Amino acid sequence: MSPFAIEILGSIAACITTLCWVPQALQIIRTRETRSISLTSQGAFAVGTALWFVYGVMIGSWPVMVANGLTLLLVGAIIALKLRYG
Amino acid sequence: MSPFAIEILGSIAACITTLCWVPQALQIIRTRETRSISLTSQGAFAVGTALWFVYGVMIGSWPVMVANGLTLLLVGAIIALKLRYG
Repeated sequence: MSPFAIEILGSIAACITTLCWVPQALQIIRTRETRSISLTSQGAFAVGTALWFVYGVMIGSWPVMVANGLTLLLVGAIIALKLRYG
Repeated sequence: MSPFAIEILGSIAACITTLCWVPQALQIIRTRETRSISLTSQGAFAVGTALWFVYGVMIGSWPVMVANGLTLLLVGAIIALKLRYG
């Protein structure tokens, strides 16, 4: 695989692991049902994603910042919905 | 921040975003309840994590391989539990 193709692969991976949380947020908005979602897991995921974002800032990597910043927004929304619907 | 401290920060972030799925898997095993978990999100997350793993192999990065390999196992378990309990 060429270095360019490898970076494309990484970019596709980053897009998918960021945007994959959209259907989860939409399902909660539609059903108002969050019981089986672990608040511990979502909270830890948010903390980890925030640390990835800071890491991205520290190494000056825009892809790491953007991917984790967006993921943090989506996971923040899922946590807010979880706290609202229980 | 020193380059060493920055790599420690990245390692902590990787550990948290990998291990954060353990409480979710344990909660499903305990409650047998998965209704509010989006299969679309979990499936897409698994695909994205698998691509991150391949990216790690391509760039020869052990941390990317290990973190995403473990995450894939945990998300695979959550998907298997979701398919079982519905």
